[in-house]
Amino acid sequence: MVRSIEIVEVGARDGLQNEAQIVETKDKIELIMRAIGAGAKKLEVASFVHPKRVPQMADAEAVVEGLPDGAAEYVGLALNMRGAQRALETKVDEIGCVAITTDSFATRNQGQTSDESVDECKRIIRFVHEQGRRANVTISTSWGCPFEGEVEPERVVEMATSLAEAGPVQIAIADTIGVADPWRVKDMFERLRDALPQVSFRAHFHNTRNTGIANAFAAVQAGVDTLDASLGGLGGCPFAPNATGNIPTEDLIYMLNRGGIETGWSAKGVAEAAAWVDTLIGDTPGMLAKAGVFPDIVAA
Amino acid sequence: MVRSIEIVEVGARDGLQNEAQIVETKDKIELIMRAIGAGAKKLEVASFVHPKRVPQMADAEAVVEGLPDGAAEYVGLALNMRGAQRALETKVDEIGCVAITTDSFATRNQGQTSDESVDECKRIIRFVHEQGRRANVTISTSWGCPFEGEVEPERVVEMATSLAEAGPVQIAIADTIGVADPWRVKDMFERLRDALPQVSFRAHFHNTRNTGIANAFAAVQAGVDTLDASLGGLGGCPFAPNATGNIPTEDLIYMLNRGGIETGWSAKGVAEAAAWVDTLIGDTPGMLAKAGVFPDIVAA
Repeated sequence: MVRSIEIVEVGARDGLQNEAQIVETKDKIELIMRAIGAGAKKLEVASFVHPKRVPQMADAEAVVEGLPDGAAEYVGLALNMRGAQRALETKVDEIGCVAITTDSFATRNQGQTSDESVDECKRIIRFVHEQGRRANVTISTSWGCPFEGEVEPERVVEMATSLAEAGPVQIAIADTIGVADPWRVKDMFERLRDALPQVSFRAHFHNTRNTGIANAFAAVQAGVDTLDASLGGLGGCPFAPNATGNIPTEDLIYMLNRGGIETGWSAKGVAEAAAWVDTLIGDTPGMLAKAGVFPDIVAA
Repeated sequence: MVRSIEIVEVGARDGLQNEAQIVETKDKIELIMRAIGAGAKKLEVASFVHPKRVPQMADAEAVVEGLPDGAAEYVGLALNMRGAQRALETKVDEIGCVAITTDSFATRNQGQTSDESVDECKRIIRFVHEQGRRANVTISTSWGCPFEGEVEPERVVEMATSLAEAGPVQIAIADTIGVADPWRVKDMFERLRDALPQVSFRAHFHNTRNTGIANAFAAVQAGVDTLDASLGGLGGCPFAPNATGNIPTEDLIYMLNRGGIETGWSAKGVAEAAAWVDTLIGDTPGMLAKAGVFPDIVAA
């Protein structure tokens, strides 16, 4: 039986929120539509965060409004209840919230302790579900914190166990600052599967130290069926020192497709979409658009 | 028992031979010495190729002459018998030769068919051993050829089996154009281990499509104990279209050290050596020197 992996395109959210330049609404919509054209079925399209904190996301409502109904599943991020309320007023299919493993990072990112971020997420998840919309949650800085260093996997499992009580449709485990290695990734997802066998997990990696694609491979080996990625490797986090882009969607698709995994994306199509992102943002870290899809590139 | 992996630093050879600029002999020696300072025990230091073909390697003898005796194991590359004779006149500890999987690439790279490249390597290996020096062999383009496309793993196993008759100390399996995926890597090394359980294999990856570090992880999982890498991700091959650098030594060391593998290298030391390479060559693709070693980077 052919294995199938879902890639959630997060370039328009995690990607663009960390780029210095402000991208116009119409260009965000074009980025999203090009990703859908290449095979994206689900995308994180905006963050409903206060525009003073993240000016890159000030047009969240306008972006969602500009997207065609039903072309794909749209996810909006909400860091607090106010954000969730804003997201519910749009047509996003799913709302994501974020819990953080350490007090130091939680305080800087969203003005809460780690435990408070878990409680707030549970409130958001329950509220969103009451309103008839789906909710997911991300556990940020799961493999390390820029301020406190190592994060124990037991803490992540503990948080996931608590968050699962609120019934999110999926829990994402995020390497926000790009410090994971594939052995730790396998270990983490094996622990989570053992503790919470009924929960769907998603993996979110940044390629800060060049281990992102290896971590994605390890997550797939550990049974994870959903991965985040951003076109061109856009992204990062404005509150995390030295954070760099997400793993590039096109490079991930290349690896998975070539490995015989079903993704529903075209490697050639996503390389073209990534090349377009370069025309919008400037040179991004993704590599497939420059190197070409093998074996298509072979001279006749 | 802690797993141990040997990293062969190939920046001074595979790295610099593909950089447009000619690096001075003294700088090559400094690069090698900085790698040794960071933990390198074995390095590919020069290619004894005709200077008209690869002017970057014209000072092969002078580089080896300038290296201190016994500081590490030095390997010199030889594409033919003449090169092997030149290498034998130096103090290199080991001589490497290269066989190629396809006729198209073998013809362009060294004016031979694939089978002829195997025969020539066997002659070189036997000759070098008769002269009391060690010889290894690399099977180039093992996961794909820039001219013929897919390469069947059976062909690589067939070549390795023939080459093993000459008794090389190690056989390297090289993804010269960076098209492998980690599933194919595992499959390849499992086939080779089954066919040739007594042979030591080395893995050589290029990060052309961002899968190089994932491929290295997969090779380690498949039991490979020796990997090539180049400081900063220098490298490529002047005869392979779109080839880019080797996997960056510092990023590989970071992943392995963090994964609890014994490498004998210091992540901080190799990041500093890579940062020095950037001052020599300009911006290289390696990432650890920019991002910093986690958890060392954590603010106090």
